[in-house]
Amino acid sequence: MKNTLFLILFSAMSLMLNAQTWIWYPGDYEIWLGNEMNNRRTERGAFFPHFWKMDSHYVLVEFSKQIDLAAPEEIEIAVEGKFNIKLDGKLQFGMPQKFTLPAGKHSLNIKVWNQATPPAIFVHGKTVKSDGSWKVTYEDKEWIDESGKASDTSATVYMPSASGGFNLATTPPSAYKLPVKPQQAVSRESVLGGELIDFGKETFGYIQLKGLSGVGKVNIYYGESKEEALDKEFCETLDCITVANSAATNSLITNNATNETVPATDIYTLNSSKAFRYVYITKDAGVKYSDVSMLFEYKPENQRGSFRCNDDEINRIWDVGAYTMLLTTREFFIDGIKRDRWTWSGDAIQSYLMNYYLFFDTETVKNTIWLLRGKDPVTSHTNTIMDYTFYWFLSVYDYYMFTGDSRFIQMVYPRMQSLMDYVLGRTNKNGMVEGMTGDWVFVDWADGYLDKHGELSYEQVLFCKSLETMALCAKVAGNDVDRVKYERSAADLRAKLIPAFWSETSKALVHNRIDGIQRPDVTRYSNMFAVFFNYLTLEQKQQIKHSVLLNDSILKITTPYMRFYELEALCALGEHKAVTKEMKDYWGGMLREGATSFWEKYNPSDKGAEHLAMYGRPYGKSLCHAWGASPVYLLGKYYLGIQPVKPGYSEFAAEPNLGGLKWMEGVVPTPQGEIKLYMNEKLIRIKASEGKGYLTFVSKSKPKASKGTIEKLDGNKYRILITGTDEVVVSYK
Amino acid sequence: MKNTLFLILFSAMSLMLNAQTWIWYPGDYEIWLGNEMNNRRTERGAFFPHFWKMDSHYVLVEFSKQIDLAAPEEIEIAVEGKFNIKLDGKLQFGMPQKFTLPAGKHSLNIKVWNQATPPAIFVHGKTVKSDGSWKVTYEDKEWIDESGKASDTSATVYMPSASGGFNLATTPPSAYKLPVKPQQAVSRESVLGGELIDFGKETFGYIQLKGLSGVGKVNIYYGESKEEALDKEFCETLDCITVANSAATNSLITNNATNETVPATDIYTLNSSKAFRYVYITKDAGVKYSDVSMLFEYKPENQRGSFRCNDDEINRIWDVGAYTMLLTTREFFIDGIKRDRWTWSGDAIQSYLMNYYLFFDTETVKNTIWLLRGKDPVTSHTNTIMDYTFYWFLSVYDYYMFTGDSRFIQMVYPRMQSLMDYVLGRTNKNGMVEGMTGDWVFVDWADGYLDKHGELSYEQVLFCKSLETMALCAKVAGNDVDRVKYERSAADLRAKLIPAFWSETSKALVHNRIDGIQRPDVTRYSNMFAVFFNYLTLEQKQQIKHSVLLNDSILKITTPYMRFYELEALCALGEHKAVTKEMKDYWGGMLREGATSFWEKYNPSDKGAEHLAMYGRPYGKSLCHAWGASPVYLLGKYYLGIQPVKPGYSEFAAEPNLGGLKWMEGVVPTPQGEIKLYMNEKLIRIKASEGKGYLTFVSKSKPKASKGTIEKLDGNKYRILITGTDEVVVSYK
Repeated sequence: MKNTLFLILFSAMSLMLNAQTWIWYPGDYEIWLGNEMNNRRTERGAFFPHFWKMDSHYVLVEFSKQIDLAAPEEIEIAVEGKFNIKLDGKLQFGMPQKFTLPAGKHSLNIKVWNQATPPAIFVHGKTVKSDGSWKVTYEDKEWIDESGKASDTSATVYMPSASGGFNLATTPPSAYKLPVKPQQAVSRESVLGGELIDFGKETFGYIQLKGLSGVGKVNIYYGESKEEALDKEFCETLDCITVANSAATNSLITNNATNETVPATDIYTLNSSKAFRYVYITKDAGVKYSDVSMLFEYKPENQRGSFRCNDDEINRIWDVGAYTMLLTTREFFIDGIKRDRWTWSGDAIQSYLMNYYLFFDTETVKNTIWLLRGKDPVTSHTNTIMDYTFYWFLSVYDYYMFTGDSRFIQMVYPRMQSLMDYVLGRTNKNGMVEGMTGDWVFVDWADGYLDKHGELSYEQVLFCKSLETMALCAKVAGNDVDRVKYERSAADLRAKLIPAFWSETSKALVHNRIDGIQRPDVTRYSNMFAVFFNYLTLEQKQQIKHSVLLNDSILKITTPYMRFYELEALCALGEHKAVTKEMKDYWGGMLREGATSFWEKYNPSDKGAEHLAMYGRPYGKSLCHAWGASPVYLLGKYYLGIQPVKPGYSEFAAEPNLGGLKWMEGVVPTPQGEIKLYMNEKLIRIKASEGKGYLTFVSKSKPKASKGTIEKLDGNKYRILITGTDEVVVSYK
Repeated sequence: MKNTLFLILFSAMSLMLNAQTWIWYPGDYEIWLGNEMNNRRTERGAFFPHFWKMDSHYVLVEFSKQIDLAAPEEIEIAVEGKFNIKLDGKLQFGMPQKFTLPAGKHSLNIKVWNQATPPAIFVHGKTVKSDGSWKVTYEDKEWIDESGKASDTSATVYMPSASGGFNLATTPPSAYKLPVKPQQAVSRESVLGGELIDFGKETFGYIQLKGLSGVGKVNIYYGESKEEALDKEFCETLDCITVANSAATNSLITNNATNETVPATDIYTLNSSKAFRYVYITKDAGVKYSDVSMLFEYKPENQRGSFRCNDDEINRIWDVGAYTMLLTTREFFIDGIKRDRWTWSGDAIQSYLMNYYLFFDTETVKNTIWLLRGKDPVTSHTNTIMDYTFYWFLSVYDYYMFTGDSRFIQMVYPRMQSLMDYVLGRTNKNGMVEGMTGDWVFVDWADGYLDKHGELSYEQVLFCKSLETMALCAKVAGNDVDRVKYERSAADLRAKLIPAFWSETSKALVHNRIDGIQRPDVTRYSNMFAVFFNYLTLEQKQQIKHSVLLNDSILKITTPYMRFYELEALCALGEHKAVTKEMKDYWGGMLREGATSFWEKYNPSDKGAEHLAMYGRPYGKSLCHAWGASPVYLLGKYYLGIQPVKPGYSEFAAEPNLGGLKWMEGVVPTPQGEIKLYMNEKLIRIKASEGKGYLTFVSKSKPKASKGTIEKLDGNKYRILITGTDEVVVSYK
């Protein structure tokens, strides 16, 4: 049943590629919508936009299409903006909602101006429809000379138009809103003259007050924890409204933060969404309300991936991880729902990877990639963070591998070029990156000193992988000159990494080099990445496992963010059992502290309210942070062991590993289908609705398969090619 | 009396520099307003935006100010956009309209988001006021680390804030509208079942219909000529409205081009302004109106410059030139009022120069310079035209010379750099510019073949002057590295010009070189510019005068645009009498054809309606085109002979030349005052209210002065230093 639903859904999506849809200039709607979303952050009633450049859509865009009609055809036209229509270069009167195209070959252009929201069009005719076959440009360069002759526009840069599932004339992109649904509190109690309301778990949305009347102020203090909600002085978010009588019979309600006033109705809904589990409400004596509830605001996601095993704690970790992802997946993948509510590249790449094993929501991945990249000129690193620039590159190729969407790579490639030009303009004489004034060298939030000076091995490893990504994407984009150029740059840098950073004393990559001299400190970061980027010899990898990864004297990682990569490195080294233990300790630890979603940072040695503090503020920490949800990814990619080998899962790898569990089962979504896998200590069942790939596993004795031929590899390793959509059952020991 | 008025006006303007005013990011309001204006072009009821990139303001801007208060102070805050206030890095609740600043030293930041119109603020306190001392940035890069420590923002690029005379909280920049005043027709007559209305001269504004009622359509055809208004099929602009009954008593009027519907009132005003002298109105039988009038829309300008002489035709030419300038000076200096209504760099530089001798409206010069430059990245030449890019550079330095406003040069310099980087990225192996695909090499509209291939001498001359301008502006902006760099590039190119283009056979610069080989054609363009840029020896200049400028076999110039430079070159060679004759022939010729404003192009050999045609359209030509008004400039700069020698007229030159006139008198405005000059064949009277400068003149006998000392120069030339504000009278013969 579930399968059928997916097939219907995806057939519908395929159809849409040839059906009319709202179209716009690639990235423009995403940047505009991103501004709307990023600007919803507040801090104690203050509007809190981000500190990097906020871009704008192109305000004037031309949409064009070559048509060839057997018969005249009437088209319906809906436009966001002021527009004109040109047929074969001739401007037509006014801004018609219907227009008849003559038979034959013609060029049709619609040019739209819109400062406030992105220029977008929707065209619907019998055969002529706005879709991905239309071209767009922000500068058509078409002029006519004195004699009326039109210019040569061969240098005009046209892009394929972009769209995003707005398939009705009546649902233009700028009207997009996340849906809401009512949600009730699980308890209300009087505390210190106010009322504390508990919604039972971390949630997100708009508080509603029923029967609000009288005269006076109502204060609403939000908390991800009870402590935060009750702390009127230090809670991170709050609302304050004033109820006033404008006349004997009409009550007016003003939001004091936004100065918006509305007439009172039976239910007053706060005008900005917040993240919380608790709200604490105090009010003046002259004002009253009868009930408090909320509208839960969410991105409708289809949870296509799943994971279950014999260990209930792991199952709970997976579930809370999935819920954390649901809350942080919105118009875009954001970091945390209480505080930043912004898109951050380092956070986003992890969300994308988790998403591929959970929702497989490719639109939101693309939206976030566009938004994070923004417009040219590049004036700072992505989110101002050097490492985040590199993660942005990596995320583009990941997207291609999971989805096979080469069209997107072609569209975004020009912005990859300009971002890489920015990076290359900031390298030192060794061709390496060092933090320059205004660059934020982030690495991680660490409970210990992290040197950010000189050439960090971590940054060079990411830079090298980014150059490799440029070469790969240049190839997908059909730019062979760039491919060769970036292959060479990547090879140059890669050849320098080990000589520059490997320490035979430490048997590891050192943290950094200053003025060409290795510093003695070793940290986990570059070592982890070098392992799963495969930048090391087998021997070096094994050395790192002991000298760094399993060495407690190396500065510990206390963010789920870097745990993500740390555990990925351990998985890449086959240390699944250690990873299972870490998951149960670390994520299980958060659950034991009462987490209903995963946190921004967790130090098991913290006590009580220490868990809530960060950034020098008692409740500064986000208790629902996307990067907290990594088990969703690890369990899919390294336990079920499924990942794409060729773009879009046309070939996949399945290398399941129980990691000490008795059994596990799960589903990994693919672009048009899914791969189901069950494994216990004797049996593997796999069923792939698309693609083909090897199931690789270890067996002490000779395994058997219900179908196909098992090949023996080195040692105890075996593999069998899974083709077709039938379930294959393998017995092993 | 007139003088007193100016002094009061300018004192008020000086005061404003220290008074509160709306402030914004430099160039942003100008770009936004420019889009509004450029997008008012229509062609036969179709919206007609331009074909180059339309930029946007920065949508998120931070305004900051370091304050030091003796006592606490309440400020009033008006903002265009959603905003926050930070005091010493701490966000304040909400978006307050009043805020109390504590005594002492503090940093005050206001961060504003506005997608639809430019972020702008107005702050008014006893001592704290929004003014030019505030800094602005689009990317403050201020982040806090895990511990709450704020980042080093020393790499943040702050700019001085910009303003433009919006000095009341209640008049925000985005609400700016040009004023209107009622204007009546001079005649109405029935023609072919419709009505032809004549407003007596070229004008601009909104047609009004009085007593519009009934049911049916009304068509309004606009014409700069009677022929155009009466030609329903080919007139360039038109309106069509539908009057309908929504109910028995309420009439609704719809503009069919814009789809806007309004309830009928006694007077219906068309919603888009048009340029015309005539309108021709036809209507359905069921609809009626009682009267037609208009609202004249204009930029209020103070006509500070003047010119009068004994020749009435020259006086009429000056008056019609001034009126042409009044019509084309709007939010920005536009080309023509009927058709493009756009800012074009080559047109604008001439408007600026005329303006310095007429209105001395420096705000509109700056606005137009900002708009033409737009935002980075540069994706094409200015208006897509190579020559127009160069004129843009030249106009910036002109502005500095006439106004002395070094603050503006400092503000705009970064955009000069990026535009020059674009040009330098498109030079050939000789370091010269050649048209590449997508570049429009314009030169001029010519009634003959103009080769646009290879290295045009005209483009290299402009390029060379642009490099010199970069060096000069780098110096003003305090960028010594750039100054040296551009001085070197300019010198390199200049050294190549004569060897590359001078032909000893033709005694002139040839038109172009292809693959390093001189082509035989000679045109006027580069020769004219090389004369007044002083790129030639005296001998070469004299050769050019005869071989090109006064040589009828060289392709004639038929646009007032290039006549501007042609006559400037003749003036620079002292050929004023020839220029006087040309003015009377050419501009006088337009007047004799009935011109009430000057035209885009005029070929004296055209007959009748041929004068109206251009671009392959019968009424394509603009009959009110800014570049038509050049006598206003020539008479001020080369007849009254007054121009700045040092920035802002701190030193001026006065070298009057009657050019065959019996007497002349006039006023040339300066930043804070004016220079008045009268001259007849025996007497020169001069009075400068600011600055000092030499009056230079020719006299056969020894001249006498009422004040000061006359020095003798070479030949019959004399000069006298004019200092102080008293009138000086010189007798000469």
